[in-house]
Amino acid sequence: MKLKHLLAPATALILAPALGFAQEAAEGAEAAAEVAEAAPGVTPYIFTTLLFLIGGFLVFWMAAGFAMLEAGLVRSKNVTMQLTKNIALFSIAAIMYWLIGFNLMYPGDGWTVPGYVGAIFVPTVLEPVGLGAADAALDYASVGSDFFFQLMFCATTASIVSGTLAERIKLWPFLIFVVVLTGVIYPIEASWQWGGGWLSEMGFSDFAGSTLVHAAGGFAALAGALILGPRIGKYRDGRTVPMPGSNLALATLGTFILWLGWFGFNGGSQLAAGTVGDVTDVSRIFANTNMAAASGAVIALILTQVMYKKPDLTMTLNGALAGLVSITAGPLDPSLFGALWIGAVGGIIVVFTVPMLDKMKIDDVVGAIPVHLLAGIWGTIAVPFYTEGTSFVTQIIGIVAIGIFVFVVSAIVWFILKAVMGIRVSEEDEINGLDMAEMGMEAYPDFTKG
Amino acid sequence: MKLKHLLAPATALILAPALGFAQEAAEGAEAAAEVAEAAPGVTPYIFTTLLFLIGGFLVFWMAAGFAMLEAGLVRSKNVTMQLTKNIALFSIAAIMYWLIGFNLMYPGDGWTVPGYVGAIFVPTVLEPVGLGAADAALDYASVGSDFFFQLMFCATTASIVSGTLAERIKLWPFLIFVVVLTGVIYPIEASWQWGGGWLSEMGFSDFAGSTLVHAAGGFAALAGALILGPRIGKYRDGRTVPMPGSNLALATLGTFILWLGWFGFNGGSQLAAGTVGDVTDVSRIFANTNMAAASGAVIALILTQVMYKKPDLTMTLNGALAGLVSITAGPLDPSLFGALWIGAVGGIIVVFTVPMLDKMKIDDVVGAIPVHLLAGIWGTIAVPFYTEGTSFVTQIIGIVAIGIFVFVVSAIVWFILKAVMGIRVSEEDEINGLDMAEMGMEAYPDFTKG
Amino acid sequence: MKLKHLLAPATALILAPALGFAQEAAEGAEAAAEVAEAAPGVTPYIFTTLLFLIGGFLVFWMAAGFAMLEAGLVRSKNVTMQLTKNIALFSIAAIMYWLIGFNLMYPGDGWTVPGYVGAIFVPTVLEPVGLGAADAALDYASVGSDFFFQLMFCATTASIVSGTLAERIKLWPFLIFVVVLTGVIYPIEASWQWGGGWLSEMGFSDFAGSTLVHAAGGFAALAGALILGPRIGKYRDGRTVPMPGSNLALATLGTFILWLGWFGFNGGSQLAAGTVGDVTDVSRIFANTNMAAASGAVIALILTQVMYKKPDLTMTLNGALAGLVSITAGPLDPSLFGALWIGAVGGIIVVFTVPMLDKMKIDDVVGAIPVHLLAGIWGTIAVPFYTEGTSFVTQIIGIVAIGIFVFVVSAIVWFILKAVMGIRVSEEDEINGLDMAEMGMEAYPDFTKG
Repeated sequence: MKLKHLLAPATALILAPALGFAQEAAEGAEAAAEVAEAAPGVTPYIFTTLLFLIGGFLVFWMAAGFAMLEAGLVRSKNVTMQLTKNIALFSIAAIMYWLIGFNLMYPGDGWTVPGYVGAIFVPTVLEPVGLGAADAALDYASVGSDFFFQLMFCATTASIVSGTLAERIKLWPFLIFVVVLTGVIYPIEASWQWGGGWLSEMGFSDFAGSTLVHAAGGFAALAGALILGPRIGKYRDGRTVPMPGSNLALATLGTFILWLGWFGFNGGSQLAAGTVGDVTDVSRIFANTNMAAASGAVIALILTQVMYKKPDLTMTLNGALAGLVSITAGPLDPSLFGALWIGAVGGIIVVFTVPMLDKMKIDDVVGAIPVHLLAGIWGTIAVPFYTEGTSFVTQIIGIVAIGIFVFVVSAIVWFILKAVMGIRVSEEDEINGLDMAEMGMEAYPDFTKG
Repeated sequence: MKLKHLLAPATALILAPALGFAQEAAEGAEAAAEVAEAAPGVTPYIFTTLLFLIGGFLVFWMAAGFAMLEAGLVRSKNVTMQLTKNIALFSIAAIMYWLIGFNLMYPGDGWTVPGYVGAIFVPTVLEPVGLGAADAALDYASVGSDFFFQLMFCATTASIVSGTLAERIKLWPFLIFVVVLTGVIYPIEASWQWGGGWLSEMGFSDFAGSTLVHAAGGFAALAGALILGPRIGKYRDGRTVPMPGSNLALATLGTFILWLGWFGFNGGSQLAAGTVGDVTDVSRIFANTNMAAASGAVIALILTQVMYKKPDLTMTLNGALAGLVSITAGPLDPSLFGALWIGAVGGIIVVFTVPMLDKMKIDDVVGAIPVHLLAGIWGTIAVPFYTEGTSFVTQIIGIVAIGIFVFVVSAIVWFILKAVMGIRVSEEDEINGLDMAEMGMEAYPDFTKG
Repeated sequence: MKLKHLLAPATALILAPALGFAQEAAEGAEAAAEVAEAAPGVTPYIFTTLLFLIGGFLVFWMAAGFAMLEAGLVRSKNVTMQLTKNIALFSIAAIMYWLIGFNLMYPGDGWTVPGYVGAIFVPTVLEPVGLGAADAALDYASVGSDFFFQLMFCATTASIVSGTLAERIKLWPFLIFVVVLTGVIYPIEASWQWGGGWLSEMGFSDFAGSTLVHAAGGFAALAGALILGPRIGKYRDGRTVPMPGSNLALATLGTFILWLGWFGFNGGSQLAAGTVGDVTDVSRIFANTNMAAASGAVIALILTQVMYKKPDLTMTLNGALAGLVSITAGPLDPSLFGALWIGAVGGIIVVFTVPMLDKMKIDDVVGAIPVHLLAGIWGTIAVPFYTEGTSFVTQIIGIVAIGIFVFVVSAIVWFILKAVMGIRVSEEDEINGLDMAEMGMEAYPDFTKG
């Protein structure tokens, strides 16, 4: 019975051209050709919709990955808070992207400042699907599936910020920042490229978001880290005090989750799966994505062994993630060898810049700035090595433009939040841990602290 | 080579009408139309089968979600037991649903009491697929995929029970209850609606099981909780003693897993993916499901901040789950705004009813009754707000009927188990923890207890 | 726009035969038939490619499952090391299988020793996709998707080894072994069957790799365990000293992850999803795989209750895994009842052989030899019960051949590694734990050790 939902219109769609030409017997072959041409229109729509849904649930899963990674890399006294931030930021992103973000990012004919700022209105809250201008625009996939998929990228951008600022930022100012980031900042800068704005006009290329998602999240995190300052005791007498993560099993799980989710992140960004060419491309993207992660992990493992005489698990995890971020701007065109070396450079960047940030006293609890901002920039710059029609200059212009926009706007928001309500917990609360101070709830109440 | 498995019959199916009419050249166009009409029959079958398989493995994943959620919310001395219950209950459900449940739930022409009790026989244990009456009935998808998908819903019902009764119930009586629940109770009440029984005749509407799965599991849990009694020391001098969960990272992971699995739970319940209309519907379901979870989480976070001055992570997790349960009865028809407020009401229900249950001294360790029973009832009642052809009265009749049936039969089974073998561990074992007493194995032997 | 990527060639493919015959009106019907025959060629390609991609990411997820299972079953002082090994071995497998393995396993016309050793060259590192001889061979799915899928099986083989040898093997010798295993040993033995080598010629049948993957990994692990020796203190005065795993929640999570991934492992091994017959087969495989896991878990739970008076969680987890391994050689042909008893025998094998191995002083930390080697052999032997055209004798010949090859070559590699660089950590390091000694990083630094 369910099968008949659309059988009438679908059949009509298929048969329309056939019947239109079926005046004479001599036109039979032509009709057959028409049928063959028309029929695929239905299945590509289905395939592409499924790509969005499957890709979307994989990217959703990355929210869990960030939560586990960050919960594993903070000290046990701040784990409940970090978990709360992660589930809350995803939920807020889901609401804000619907309320403002999606229409702002895909304005259709509704640009407020053409090419720069999309449609700032919320017209369709009460409509059946409520997805506004973009609704009519899609004929190659369900708009609901597209919304679902794109929303996940918006949420990812916010996830990146929470790791850097962990262990000292207050919950509510952070969540208010997330409201602005997911409702306004991300949709505007992403619209410049994916909404058909000025960067896409210019020839900037960022397939799945090395810059639009990862570096953007990194810039927002960097602004926050500078304004928030490092954790108490992190930098003492010119020395960096290690504050080891409380649960490396969780951190590893988080990395595996992110790796898995990235197949959806990059593969789904093909935005089409209805032809032989498209699924072949999606397959290449899967293979390249995997390769970049693998080479990022291996190089970080080897480098830490060579440099510090001890292989470093958290560096290896971040190496894998940096490999993933690096390939994200151009996962389709490189050969597997290309993915290998692009990912490896990402891993190298992490190993060298994590201590560099510490020297600059920028306290990034989970290493999100090296992984997402720096490897994201690298990946975006690397695109012209393999993708025809792109140029290093244009890539750099795009990175700089997005970087300035996100960093400046984020900094303004952080400053306002700091002035209005304060963004940092008290010294006492920070030392005691945010879990008891802000939440009244420990993550591991049964385990004695060492 | 593999491609040829069914090439012969599949081609025959496609070509049959074409060849039938290909007597004369003049019939060519007609033949082409026939081909176009016939060919889609193959791909919808494939798409719908894939929907069942992908939806099914996502719902399978929810079994892991319940295991992690519950293991995280019990005290560390009961974790091994809770894990054992979860993997065992899923395994038992898989066997019982095959042995009895599936045929009982989808009796085809084999109703024993038409509309009320399905076919009570086990005829096909040794047949190739062994799925009985339903086997012949499906022509829109593989019966194996349907069995796989439906089985997961049966297992979910059992998962709900284990959380409520944690930390004091004996392993084997609990598992025997699972045998009855998954083999008999769930299949009978579910057949009333999804097997074409009297509730579906009456116009009751429960798209993916707010009542048939979640409230049903909740009613079974409630019966057990009343008969089993609260944990020792939980209610003392009119006060509720907090017994905090041992691992909130696991609990959060479990919630994310459940949220992910729910896309399969609700999306797969479209039961068709072979047309533009069906995948568009599946997409709306995905978007609505996500929105309801997000709003349930946000509202619970805000409410606990306002009411208790501290945001509460476990309430937020349960808020997300309550949002998911709430939208499950009608995830297709509401707008995103509809999903938002329906989910939010679910979150509100959780925040207010968790302490209420405690006041009634009903000890529900993980909050499964508020989340699955109460939000499930709410979601079922809310269906007529958006779904045409449904009525509040009919919805309430369905809820009451299922509630009475599941609660009474469950209570009888619990009483029999209590009389025959006892369902509660000894006081000493409960205080020492079920892990050492019943299992002889700690979940975290290396970590000193606080 | 994306939709048009391949529209031209795809349409050409569809229309080619139609146009070729469209000389006269009388040929219209014939053309229609040709179209019908040709058009499905596009969608099966897409479906099968998606099967590889979805199956592939599910099997990827198994790498996380092994990591969690093993991290949960080692003592807390060795957790960081075990996590490092798991992420590193997967990454190495990804690189080696591309560099050597894939071409060696699927040599096309490039056999070096026909039927026994594939093409030993690395010709295509710099090519667009870089997948060599097999590239041209595939016309039913994307070669990239096939590579992605097959790579995951290679990595799985290595994952099996790491668990057995945990808590005493040095990191780098282990990883060098992984290089050889994933680059050479696995691809050669797997090519005997899946690359069209002598075993497939002979009629050996191993659908998804009970022997080619699981027993092979087990043989490599066994060789290592014998050469490496047991952990210090494991066998004392003729007694086996229990060394309980540090985190059974993680171990359970790992088992659920593996169970989930196995749907991709077995289901994807159908290698086709473009016809009604193929997806129906995939569905049967899903249902059978789930049933075998369930029955393996239940039987292990019951047996440990009966034999030891205490149900055993780790045995139950390993029972589920043994059920999965057992059904892997023939997941398609058995009825659900067949899957039930085949999986149950796997569970029984585990319960009886775990203590047997201890009696032989073969120290297998996570039980990988019973689960993967012994249940893998069982599953391979069981194939002829349900699969026509197979024979017990041929099955045994295949198992013995692969066993000897993998065991002997692995032993040689282990001996060389032992002679050249040593494979075992110092006694002091082993007692203190590998995490501090080799890594300088604890997995759970905040939790006091008991």
